Amino acid sequence: MGSEEKGIFLLPKGFKAGGLHCGIKRKRHDLGYIVSEVPAVAAGVYTTNSFQAAPLAVTQRSIAIENKIQALIVNSGNANACTGNQGMQDAYEMQQLFAGKLGIGSHLVAVTSTGVIGELLPMDCIRKGIDTILNPEFEGPAEFQKAILTTDTCVKSAAVEININGKTVTISGAAKGSGMVHPNMATMLAFVTTDANIEQAALLSALKDTSNKTFNMITVDGDSSTNDMVLVMANGLAGNEALNEAHLDWLAFADGLKVVCESLAKQIARDGEGATKLVEVKVVGAKSLEDARAVGKTIISSNLVKTAIYGQDANWGRIVAAIGYSGVPVIPENVAVSIGSYPVFANGLPLPFSEEEVKAYLGGTEVDILVDLNQGDAVASAWGCDLTYDYVKINASYRT
Amino acid sequence: MGSEEKGIFLLPKGFKAGGLHCGIKRKRHDLGYIVSEVPAVAAGVYTTNSFQAAPLAVTQRSIAIENKIQALIVNSGNANACTGNQGMQDAYEMQQLFAGKLGIGSHLVAVTSTGVIGELLPMDCIRKGIDTILNPEFEGPAEFQKAILTTDTCVKSAAVEININGKTVTISGAAKGSGMVHPNMATMLAFVTTDANIEQAALLSALKDTSNKTFNMITVDGDSSTNDMVLVMANGLAGNEALNEAHLDWLAFADGLKVVCESLAKQIARDGEGATKLVEVKVVGAKSLEDARAVGKTIISSNLVKTAIYGQDANWGRIVAAIGYSGVPVIPENVAVSIGSYPVFANGLPLPFSEEEVKAYLGGTEVDILVDLNQGDAVASAWGCDLTYDYVKINASYRT
Repeated sequence: MGSEEKGIFLLPKGFKAGGLHCGIKRKRHDLGYIVSEVPAVAAGVYTTNSFQAAPLAVTQRSIAIENKIQALIVNSGNANACTGNQGMQDAYEMQQLFAGKLGIGSHLVAVTSTGVIGELLPMDCIRKGIDTILNPEFEGPAEFQKAILTTDTCVKSAAVEININGKTVTISGAAKGSGMVHPNMATMLAFVTTDANIEQAALLSALKDTSNKTFNMITVDGDSSTNDMVLVMANGLAGNEALNEAHLDWLAFADGLKVVCESLAKQIARDGEGATKLVEVKVVGAKSLEDARAVGKTIISSNLVKTAIYGQDANWGRIVAAIGYSGVPVIPENVAVSIGSYPVFANGLPLPFSEEEVKAYLGGTEVDILVDLNQGDAVASAWGCDLTYDYVKINASYRT
Repeated sequence: MGSEEKGIFLLPKGFKAGGLHCGIKRKRHDLGYIVSEVPAVAAGVYTTNSFQAAPLAVTQRSIAIENKIQALIVNSGNANACTGNQGMQDAYEMQQLFAGKLGIGSHLVAVTSTGVIGELLPMDCIRKGIDTILNPEFEGPAEFQKAILTTDTCVKSAAVEININGKTVTISGAAKGSGMVHPNMATMLAFVTTDANIEQAALLSALKDTSNKTFNMITVDGDSSTNDMVLVMANGLAGNEALNEAHLDWLAFADGLKVVCESLAKQIARDGEGATKLVEVKVVGAKSLEDARAVGKTIISSNLVKTAIYGQDANWGRIVAAIGYSGVPVIPENVAVSIGSYPVFANGLPLPFSEEEVKAYLGGTEVDILVDLNQGDAVASAWGCDLTYDYVKINASYRT
């Protein structure tokens, strides 16, 4: 437990990664890969959007064949979403081309895309890119990380090393996501690699549980996308006894996975389009986990709360109003709200606080909001960001 | 049917209204009233926010006594929400003071407030204001309309005249609302007056039905407030036979009420904080009314759709993505989307259109989005506005 997060995309044993510019974007990297020496146990969670993009369908079907993948190929700049049959063919072609270069079965290659919706992939660029991407000059985790970005202003990565049966196991991930980010997966992609030896069912269960606590608790703007995916590859090269929920070191693994995913999720929230601050809402004293999550997500999603934080305005009334319309039955007199270490509301009434001090606190780059519902023991955290002029600027002219 | 909306707050027989500046705001009007010569049948719909403001509780309880009111008193600039016992006492005092000036029972006076949450009402101002507000110099529907505004940039009013049993019946309303506006009632107030003679149960039923189609289908920013209320007063002075659902002219009345409420709702959406455009999303071909409403509300609430419209960007992918995460099961290949008269998406694929023409269309002050789910016959409309720099500006510094 308590794994220390290293803040880098530290490839575990047997993994390599890379990326390059193939021509989908004007200048920046737009095609990346991760490859394992051996097939890796795989688990994924996918967008719940009805308009699921073509590559997600291809990847889900492929993983289902033997619950393993050995590689993934990803492009940015074009989402291959709302592209009909041609989009499906293009996703399959991307998969087969990369599998051919690696000399492995196509179903062992995950494929995914992120970017503009509704335009066909420029397959000429992608074909040329895949043809050369395995060259050593394009190799390196930093090249991969750059290749998955869209409106992101920085790369997102996290890694932990844990001990399983005396073996060092690495869990490390890279993610992208900035706009169209909302609970239940958004225009975000996260790829987690580990050399752990682990049973697939246990890996999938740990991923779902962790995603609900991390990636599904962030929002930038309330929009969920057609392309979201979190994929974990576990290639077993650490040589530990196979992990499952009964393994003595299970909690160490599950905790390590959560540390990596929570770090990536917070990095995405902090880099929300136009954001100047990471905002964390912690809800305690809820009757149930669902209640705690609902209240947290409602507050973190409120445009009024987000603009007030941007304006360094301790407008706690907007937090209280959001709790009130969250759909969770609360007893107004029992609810207590703090901004940072400043209690601002309790017993149905405002509390006296120094406007200047709270304004100064809201001027920082991290803002914590604590809500105690005083109805039970359930706890949840949600992460988001402030809503700024730059969010409007970025999104009023995304395609042009 | 087809009542012509007159665009003014045309007081029906036996009603008068007025307003003045009592000192809650710095300069502008902040206290208003409506009074009927005789007690009027009353019906109201109220916010579903758990932190319902004190005056709403007082008004609901008072109306329940005999389903009638004869007057209402309203202040702006202070919401009297999250103000505890003192807030309840203040709301009752406002009610009693105004009832005293009129010489009627307190329970015949509705009281409501809108503005900043969490500050006690400045009762000195309110007492002085109520003491003089009935003076003729403060009388007039325009004075009332100004008195209920907060961040609104204009007054909102609507009126129709219909014929019931050969009698002319007027239905006329005034509303306020600009920010914190979202389906299920927001920081909006609407007051509808009519001289119709009508049974209370029928009036309440018509109001609920109409509110679901109008006030509950608008959004500015997804935040629902503690103070929302729509109140109808029907004083019967038109002299028609009492209306109920069995009355031959019932549909004329119900339609007239809807015309007034829809007009007020659209005026609120158009005046959304920072808005430059009124956006209407019409959903057709849904399996159920609930589905149609859910899809419409999801699109109109999407920050990404709203910023794209502000930027005159025909980014239909965001509309499609919003349909996809609305929670309504749709068949992607069956969904068709038009922006204005330009079909942009059908059969799971983008349609060719002139970017320049659609950009020019999006430059207007009214934008229509049409979505056909091709799954049934249900239809709904939702109204909202674009998301602009000014929205952020207004809300980053509301209190300061």
